This record gives sequence, structure tokens and C-alpha cells, in this order.
Amino acid sequence: MILSALFTAVGINLGLCILFLVLYSILRNLPGNARVYAPRLVAEGEAQQRASFDIERLVPSAGWVRRAWKLSEDELLSVSGLDAVIFMRIFVFNLKVFSIAGAIGIFILLPINYEGNQLHSIDFGNLPNESLDKFTISNVKNGSNWLWAHFSAAYVMTAVVCYLLYSEYEYVSSKRLAYFDASKPQPHHFTVLVRGIPRCTAGNYSGSVESFFSEIHSSTYLTHIMVRQTSKLRRLVDLEENLRIEQSDVSLTGQEVPAAFVCFRSRYSAAMAIHIQQSVNPIQWVTEQAPEPRDVYWPFFSTSFLRRWISKLVVFIASVVLTIIFLIPVAFVQGLANLDKLEILFPFLTSILTITFVSQVITGYLPSLILHLFLTLVPPVMKVFSTMQGYISHSEIEKSACSKMILFTIWNAFFAIVLSGSVASQAEIFLDPKHIPERLAVAVPAQATFFITYVMTSGWTNLSSEVTRMKPLVGDFIERHFSKCCGGEFTVPSLPYHRQIPAILFFGLLGIAYFLLAPLILPFLMVYFFLGFIVYRNQILNVYVPKYETAGKFWPMVHNSSIFALVLMQLIAIGIFGLKKLPTASTLTVPLPVLTLLFNEYCRKRFLPNFYVYSAESLIKKDREEQNDPAMPGFLSNLASAYRDPAMKPVRRTEEAEQGLSTPFLSSGGA
Amino acid sequence: MILSALFTAVGINLGLCILFLVLYSILRNLPGNARVYAPRLVAEGEAQQRASFDIERLVPSAGWVRRAWKLSEDELLSVSGLDAVIFMRIFVFNLKVFSIAGAIGIFILLPINYEGNQLHSIDFGNLPNESLDKFTISNVKNGSNWLWAHFSAAYVMTAVVCYLLYSEYEYVSSKRLAYFDASKPQPHHFTVLVRGIPRCTAGNYSGSVESFFSEIHSSTYLTHIMVRQTSKLRRLVDLEENLRIEQSDVSLTGQEVPAAFVCFRSRYSAAMAIHIQQSVNPIQWVTEQAPEPRDVYWPFFSTSFLRRWISKLVVFIASVVLTIIFLIPVAFVQGLANLDKLEILFPFLTSILTITFVSQVITGYLPSLILHLFLTLVPPVMKVFSTMQGYISHSEIEKSACSKMILFTIWNAFFAIVLSGSVASQAEIFLDPKHIPERLAVAVPAQATFFITYVMTSGWTNLSSEVTRMKPLVGDFIERHFSKCCGGEFTVPSLPYHRQIPAILFFGLLGIAYFLLAPLILPFLMVYFFLGFIVYRNQILNVYVPKYETAGKFWPMVHNSSIFALVLMQLIAIGIFGLKKLPTASTLTVPLPVLTLLFNEYCRKRFLPNFYVYSAESLIKKDREEQNDPAMPGFLSNLASAYRDPAMKPVRRTEEAEQGLSTPFLSSGGA
Repeated sequence: MILSALFTAVGINLGLCILFLVLYSILRNLPGNARVYAPRLVAEGEAQQRASFDIERLVPSAGWVRRAWKLSEDELLSVSGLDAVIFMRIFVFNLKVFSIAGAIGIFILLPINYEGNQLHSIDFGNLPNESLDKFTISNVKNGSNWLWAHFSAAYVMTAVVCYLLYSEYEYVSSKRLAYFDASKPQPHHFTVLVRGIPRCTAGNYSGSVESFFSEIHSSTYLTHIMVRQTSKLRRLVDLEENLRIEQSDVSLTGQEVPAAFVCFRSRYSAAMAIHIQQSVNPIQWVTEQAPEPRDVYWPFFSTSFLRRWISKLVVFIASVVLTIIFLIPVAFVQGLANLDKLEILFPFLTSILTITFVSQVITGYLPSLILHLFLTLVPPVMKVFSTMQGYISHSEIEKSACSKMILFTIWNAFFAIVLSGSVASQAEIFLDPKHIPERLAVAVPAQATFFITYVMTSGWTNLSSEVTRMKPLVGDFIERHFSKCCGGEFTVPSLPYHRQIPAILFFGLLGIAYFLLAPLILPFLMVYFFLGFIVYRNQILNVYVPKYETAGKFWPMVHNSSIFALVLMQLIAIGIFGLKKLPTASTLTVPLPVLTLLFNEYCRKRFLPNFYVYSAESLIKKDREEQNDPAMPGFLSNLASAYRDPAMKPVRRTEEAEQGLSTPFLSSGGA
Repeated sequence: MILSALFTAVGINLGLCILFLVLYSILRNLPGNARVYAPRLVAEGEAQQRASFDIERLVPSAGWVRRAWKLSEDELLSVSGLDAVIFMRIFVFNLKVFSIAGAIGIFILLPINYEGNQLHSIDFGNLPNESLDKFTISNVKNGSNWLWAHFSAAYVMTAVVCYLLYSEYEYVSSKRLAYFDASKPQPHHFTVLVRGIPRCTAGNYSGSVESFFSEIHSSTYLTHIMVRQTSKLRRLVDLEENLRIEQSDVSLTGQEVPAAFVCFRSRYSAAMAIHIQQSVNPIQWVTEQAPEPRDVYWPFFSTSFLRRWISKLVVFIASVVLTIIFLIPVAFVQGLANLDKLEILFPFLTSILTITFVSQVITGYLPSLILHLFLTLVPPVMKVFSTMQGYISHSEIEKSACSKMILFTIWNAFFAIVLSGSVASQAEIFLDPKHIPERLAVAVPAQATFFITYVMTSGWTNLSSEVTRMKPLVGDFIERHFSKCCGGEFTVPSLPYHRQIPAILFFGLLGIAYFLLAPLILPFLMVYFFLGFIVYRNQILNVYVPKYETAGKFWPMVHNSSIFALVLMQLIAIGIFGLKKLPTASTLTVPLPVLTLLFNEYCRKRFLPNFYVYSAESLIKKDREEQNDPAMPGFLSNLASAYRDPAMKPVRRTEEAEQGLSTPFLSSGGA
């Protein structure tokens, strides 16, 4: 790829990006669009739905950028909870990393690469026709002492990223603890989900729970609520919206399943029941922290153990199949990116491809667009997979889908792309661990230009389409003008973490992996992260409403993915110094991955436990604070009702819904 | 190897075995040998040390066999604790397995193999000159339907072993729980080892412990005792045996280290402190179950964190080096076992080797003797490795050494022997997982005869030398006749689990792996396990004194090793049915390893947790039972003193020792 092809890609993407942003600045002011661009505010009743038309509104305004920029973290916390704050920290962290990396890369590494003269210029002195490879490490002369600059950069980058990772981890976990310390009494802190309940002599489970917990935890056990088989009920309610289910109708209340939410008088006593094996038989009375009431994934309880077990197997096989199927678009993308191969396959293309612009679009823009489009199809599939695996809460499902998606992206959008061009089989590389650095050093730089365009095509476009919300906009337009049902009812979306986080982390990975090889990628990434910072703050403020609160449990994934990127960068460095005939530098780089992994090990010990449990210290402190709170007895007496299956609650009648008395958002959020 | 060579090996080993056993039957009755053959009884004052000589005693008596056989499990429990009982269950389990496997193997598989006619007889009709390969599965005709007998045997064997494993696991864990339920209050149930203690404002650790635990666990915290740096002290005491250290001598009491034994009022409250993260900072106030006072490995606390960390690295490298070095004797053993290769290397041997007996000794006896001798050198090295890794108790050190030794034995005494003859590199096989069954099917049967002789040479000889205790006998003889110091002081040995368990498990693995291939190994194994059952019961009764009680924590290793053996057998079966041109049987065997691993997964969930923790149910039950026990206040007030570093206790003066007032056994056992 030559520099002018890159400019073509920049031109197309920048054009699209600006177009979308201007479009957004206009559309958001139009009457009636509030339900698309500020559904959160509408639901909270804060958006003024002005119906009158005003020519002034067609002038694009950048006020939303200023508001998003000025928003403080505390405001964000109060508006959207801790998860949103932690989500935004991903951008902050990456901006910090890439401003330092960018400075080193652009002002030190790039000039060294360009002056290297290892590669022959196609057209000397003509910058636009210069191959992009001239800006990569491939252009530095073999054995050149200039490579020590790259060597030092690897050490500096490792130190910087580790320092930033440490301070971010510290910051995030302190935020998490502070959030807990400041939290009001919440049902899930006092509640334990118990499974594997044996039947009592009378034959039911409820009596069994009552007698077991009042025996073992006599002084702290409060009450419990059984989980019931409500799948039939759920289907029925779907069928007949207007049906009012009476609680006394036994045939409809559903059978008890051997699971219950057990409530305790204090947080510490609930923690005791969670962390100490309750029964002599470890597969009975299995306890775990209850999710927030709104976060419980009720259909899960209706599936049998055997079905969940088979589902897990199916999910595993399906994931493997998906990974293999995905190699087809990857191979296609690969083919486009290496145009010369394509010409051999389809000779008739040669005439079309001689037109510079067409060829530049096909090599520079199309491949990454295709990859991007195929990648956007995967997150919903991953979410279905995670759902099948039997998690008990929406947050667990999305967390699991998120980590699946990270692995999928790294494997299919990085390794498959990088290796299929240079190594026949991808698996081969991992069967020969000694040669991993060397092979990566050959394969990774070869795809530098592809990933530079990918950052623009996937990253920039993604952000601008995120802000314009094209799909909801069209959907809303159709509903308003063609649908008969013009209710006040609409669903406020929540931020799809399992879709967004892997995409963002993948760009971070690209930046760190290519930092040494092709620093030209860094400015594009900085634009991405800066734009992302603004766009997502705006969206969190106006569009999304959290449907659960994990208090930052997504952060460890961010940390792990960055450590992986760092080790990848170091392995590539080891390989590339070897290829470039500087074996001393190669050997001296070996301690880096070792040190990085030890650092990671320390972080796992130091911070990770706090993302799973709260310490005795914090729990007891909170419990003592509330000992004399007059509101506590009321809270405790309502505890069990918080964990009632929504299918068991009396269904609101349609008239109520028409009067807008309760939107689904409110009813699920307040449960 | 031909049948007569096997008979030579049987002859030599049986002769040695009987010789040793007769020798033992005589020697144990001789005056003065009580300290060698019944040190445990001597220490307990039960052995009558008759000094008079009596010609009657030279008649070997088999009374000890009867006594060992008749001993009930409850007696064993009361004499030597639960660990010894569980140790004997390894023999019981294997006897059960191999009586069923032996019946199938000898009466069904062996005749089928012998009648197979795939291999040509060297000397038809002359049984002694028949190759042993005629008795293996190699002799069954390719594609023969008789192989379905082997196929069914694989399924039956898997079912039998899994059933026995399940019932043993259930039995052992019920024994463990019963032992806990019946136990008197023991210091380590009430005590928690705390590490990572931050300094308090006054600068010492003790104050910090006091304030933290009386704040967090105000109602249950009892007292604590700090661990002190006693390495200097320990050296000093070695140097000057007669020194009496006064507690008031501050310079000698050693500096506090940031670790303490914290005692609680009840078992349940101690468990709470163990299982719930105590501090907001997860690397401070790290808690774990305290070991028994006699089990604490005190020198550990004197080493610095950095030193332990480096030690771990050193241990890892040293283990790898040891494994590589061990390939030298393995190659030598391999050479001897394949005599024809040896003749090519050393042509002058040909004349000697033509003598039948010499050749039979060299191929049949020498190789396994050499392997056995080299293997006996390894356990002490593994123990040193585990000690360096920083475990806080003797039991943990031996458990870790035991699992290291199991891996080492399986790798170096099985795979290295099996694969070096047929595959150039051992590692190669694991890089190509698809072909593992096929390669094993080629390589494993080839070493069948070697392992049959190994069972006799290593197994039988090991047992008979265990019972005669040659080394202690000679040592004691020298001490009594040539040493000036003729004190009443002597050390009672404890059963070296890390040496014995891996050896026994290895024989179990051999039996299961060769069950299908060469059932001829089974009778030899049955003799081994039966003899072992008698010998070790006798030794536990007379010789060994437990130096700690893990209440059966060694059992999961036995279970895992048997599962490994079972999967190995199944993989070999898959390979061998393929080689024998019966692909249907090969395919139909594939579900077996999957089912076995699922069974193992279930066992892990069902039983394993009980080997690490006691449940809230049991803890609370015990606590309630003792609530009104008048002995409890006394027990609790003495709790802290149980965890005093022995180096800190006033050293007994030599005069006291000479009067035999306290033997090391009694002082360490009663601590």
C-alpha cells in the first residue's frame, strides 16, 4: 500500500465521520427525535418535547461536545452508576498510554524508520507514492545501531503501561470500595442464592430451607423466598396481555425448584453463608452472592440441570464452529488486502484495478469494512451462547459474552488476519513455542497497513454511527408514521458492554502491538480514543440507562487484555531484533515479558480479590453504621419481596399501560 | 524375553523375598533389636527388652503376619491416626481392583492372547522358550473378533474402577468427617495463621494484631502469639546444647516477623476469619488454617519473602534439570532391556551373553534393579525442593513432595522408558495429540516384560527390605558396639508418605495400563499388594509414629492417579484396536475417556471440597457440643502457648536428657 492509498482511506473515513457528526448535531435538535437521541432524559421526564418547528435548529450546534467534555466523573457516577464511570476509564487509560506512545513513536521511531534505507524506494523523493512500509521498522537497516532506540522504546513503553495499569487498577478498586461504602442498604448485599436444596421430610423445599438456616444461622437468618418454575406462566402472560393472575390460583404459581433467595440480618452474616461451605455434602446447599433483583435472569431457573449441562457442551462446539466459519470472511479480507493475489485468481479484474482510485478503495478501504461488518454480527451470538451456559444474572451473561468476544476478536481479527497470509496453519505457530517471536516478527509487520485502515474504518465509523443511532432513528420514524400503535411506551436502551468493550480493547491491543513496528498507527488511534471519550460520555448522558450495576467488575478484563497486548509487543520485539541481526537486543528483551507477567501476578494478588468479594472490614463497618438506623427494620421486612419473579407479580392491565403509568423501564428498574 | 528368563527373575526375587522375611522373623525376636523393629513400642514403653539369650528365638515365627492381618481398622485408627488408615486403604483399593482385573485378565484375556497365533512361535510346543509376547495382545490376529473381549474388558474395568473409586472416596471422606466429629478440641481448629500484618502506629506488629482482631471480631477473638525470627537462636542452640535460654534475655528471643497465630473462641469463628477476606487490601491480613502445633515448620518463618520467591524459581529450574539428568540412567536401563542393541555397541559382550543364565539376569533382572535404585534417590531431593518452596508445615511439605514424586515417577519411570525405545523425542508425542493413542499402542506393549520384572524387583524387594529395615539395623548395631554415646535417646521414625505413596501408586498405574495388553502382570501385582498390606500394617503397628495428622488429605492424589491410569489404559485401547484393524472397537472406545473425565469432574465437586474445609454444619455442631464442657475454658486459656516456637522454649539440660525424662519424640509429639 502506498501513502496516497492511505490518504484515500483517510479521506473517505474522515468525510463520513464529519458527515455523521454534523447530521447528529442537526437531527438531535429536531422535534420528536428526543426519543431517539435522549431516551434516557425522556424516561426521566427531563427532555422538553417541543413540537414546534424552528429554522434555527437546522444549524448544527457543537454544544453537546462541550457538555460531554465538561462532565465530571462524580456527575457521571450520580447519573449512570459506577459501571459507566469505569467504562469511560478505558478511554482515559488508553488516551494516557497513547499520548506517551504517540510522542515516542512519531517523534523518535518514525523518523528513524523512514531514514533507514533498508527498503528500496519505488519512486524516490515522491512522498505520495512512497510505500507505507518505509515508515515501519522493516526499513531500518539490518544490524543498525538505531535499533537500540526501538529497544529502549520497548522498555519505556512497558514501564509506562505497567505504571498506568497499576494506578488505574488502584483507582478503579478504590472507586469500587468507595461506592460500596457510600451505598444505601441494597437487597443483594443481604441475600444469598442457595441451590442444591434437598427436600425436607414433608416433601417440599421451603420447609427444608427454613429448618436448615434457622438451625445453622439461628441468630442471623431472616427469611427466604423460593424460586418457582415460571416458564409456563411466562408463556401464558405473553399470550394474554390482559390476564390478571391471582396469587391464590395455585395451578399458575409454578412449582418450587430447589433454589431459594435466603435473606440475612446483616451483610457480614450473608458473606459468611457465601464463603463457608454450608453442608457436609458439598453439592447440597451451594451458596453464592445473589444478584441485584433487577439483574436476575429468571428464565434460567426454569431449565433443568441436564439441559444446562448439555447446553454448555453445545456452546463449546458452537464456539469452535463459529471460529472456523469466521475464517471464510477473514480469508476474503486477506485476499483483498493482498491485491496481487486477487488478480491472479480473477484476471478480468486487472483492467478495473488499473484505475488508481478503485484500486486504492479496494486495498485501502474495502477489506477493513468487510471485517468490521462481519465482526458486528458476532456479539449477539456470543450473548446467546452465554445465556445458554446458565448464568443467573444479566450482568454475568454480558460479562461472559464480553470475555468470549475479546478472545474471539483477538483470535479471529488479529491472529487469523496476521497469520493466514504468512503461515499455512494458524495452529502450527503455537505447537512450536520457541519460534513464536520469530514468526510473529515476520507476520505482524506485514499487516500494519491493513490495521491502520481498520482503525479508521471500524473505529471512527463505529463511533460516528454510535452517535447518530441510524437504526433506532429509522425504526422510530417508521413507528411514528406508519404504525398504528402510538403509545407513550418505549424501551430505554442500556449500554451493550459485551459489544463495545471488546472493540475498544482491540484497538488498544493494536496500538500496543504495532507501537514499535509501525508507529504511524498511533495518531489514528489517538483520534479514535479522543472521539470515543466525547461520544460515549454524550451517549451515557442522553441515551443509555444502566440495567444493572456490577460496580466495576468489567475492569479486570481491561487489565488482562492490556497485559496480553504488552507481552505480544515484547514477543514481536524479541523476534524482530533477531531478524534484524541484533541478537544482543533480542536477548536483552527476554526479561521484559517475564517481568510483565510477574507484575500481572502481583496485580492479581493485590487488586483482583476486591472485584469478587467485599472484605470483613468493609462489611462489618457498613453493618455497624446501620445498626441504629430507624429505616433498617422496614428495609429488612421488605427484603424477600424484592426477589419475587416478575412473572409472579400481578400483570398491569392494558389501560394502565395506555395511561403511561408504568413503562417497562420503570417497572424493571424499580423491582 | 522368553518365559524362562521371566522364571529366572521370579526365582531370584522370590528367593530374596523369602530370605528377607525369614531373616526378619528371626531378627525381630533377638534381644536388643526392639529399638530397630519396634521403636514405636519402645518409645511407648510397651516392648519388653529381655536381655537374656534364648535358643527358641532363632526359630522364625510368623506370628507377626497373623497379628498384622487380624488388626481391625479401628485399632489402626486408635494406634496411628487416620493418615495410616487411609494409607492402608490404598492397598485395600488396589487389592479389590486387581482381584477383579486379575480374574478377567488371567481367565479370559490371557487364553485369548495365547491362542491368537499372530506371532510365530520360536520353538513350538516348548513353553519355557515361548516369548512373553505370545501372552500379550500383540499375539491376537489382526481384525479378529476375539478383540471384542478386550473391548468389553475395557468397559468392565472402567466401570469397576470408577465404582470402587467412588465408594472409596465416599468412605474416606466419611472417615474424615467422623474423625473430625469425634475429635477432642485441638488447637489448630481454633487457630488461624495470619500473614501480611501491617505495623501499627507504635511500630510493632503485636499491637496491630490486637487492635485489628478485637475491632473486627470483637466477640470471638481470644488471643494471639507472634512468630519470631529464630534462625540465629536455632543455630546458637545447636552449638551449645547445654545453654539455658532465659525468656527475659531480649537479645535472644528473636525479632517479630509480620506473622501471628491468632486464636478464636470457637471453630466456626476461626473458619470465618479464614474464608472471608479480612482487609480491604487483599495482601494484608492474609489468613489461612493454622497447622497442628507439632506440624509447624518453624524455619520457614525466618526466611525473607524475596528468598522464598527466588527459591521457587530455583526449584522449578532444578526440577527440570533433575528430569533431564534422570534420562541418563533411563537410557542405560533401556539399553540393557534391549540386549541386542547392547551387543552391537560392545561386541566383546557377545561371548558372555551367550551363557543363558547371565543373559537372563541381564535382561530380566538388572534393568529394573538399576531403575529402582535410581528412583529411590529421588524422594529426598523432592522433599528438599518442597521445603524450599516455603510451605508452613511438615505435612504440606510432604504432600507437595509426594505429588512432585508422582509426576516424576509417571514421567521418568513410565513415559521415558516406554517412549525412548520407540520415539526419538518424548516431547514430540504431546505435540501431536491426535496420534497419542496410536503411538502409545505401539510403544507401551513393547515394554510389558520390563515392567513385569520391575514389579518383582522394585515392588517385592522394596517390601521385604522395608520390613527388615537393613539400614537402621546396621546403624543401630554400629552405635551400640562402636559408639561411646550409649544413651536411651533415639528417634522414632515416621512413615515417609512422599516416598511410599508414589511407589505404590505407580504399581497401580502399571496394572491398569497393562491390564488389556499384558494380563500376565496382574498376578505379580496381586502378590505385591497383598504382601504390602501385611508388611505396612506390621510396620505401622511396630515402627512408625505419626509426626502429623492430615486426616486423609493424601487421598485425592490416589484418586487422581487412578483416574490418570484409567484414561491412559483407554487411550492405549483406542490405539491398539486401530492397529489391530478393528476400527469400530476403536471408535466405540472413544466415549470411555470422556465419561471417565466427567466422572472425575463429579467426584471433584462431590468429595474434594471436604478435604480442604470443614462445613459450617460440622463446625457449628462441634462448637455447640462443647459449649457447656467444663474443660473448655482451660483449653482456651492454653491455646496460644501451643504455638510457641520450640527454639523459644527453655532447652532441657543434658542431665535431664540422660535421665531419659524427655525423648525428642515425646517432646515434639506433645508440643
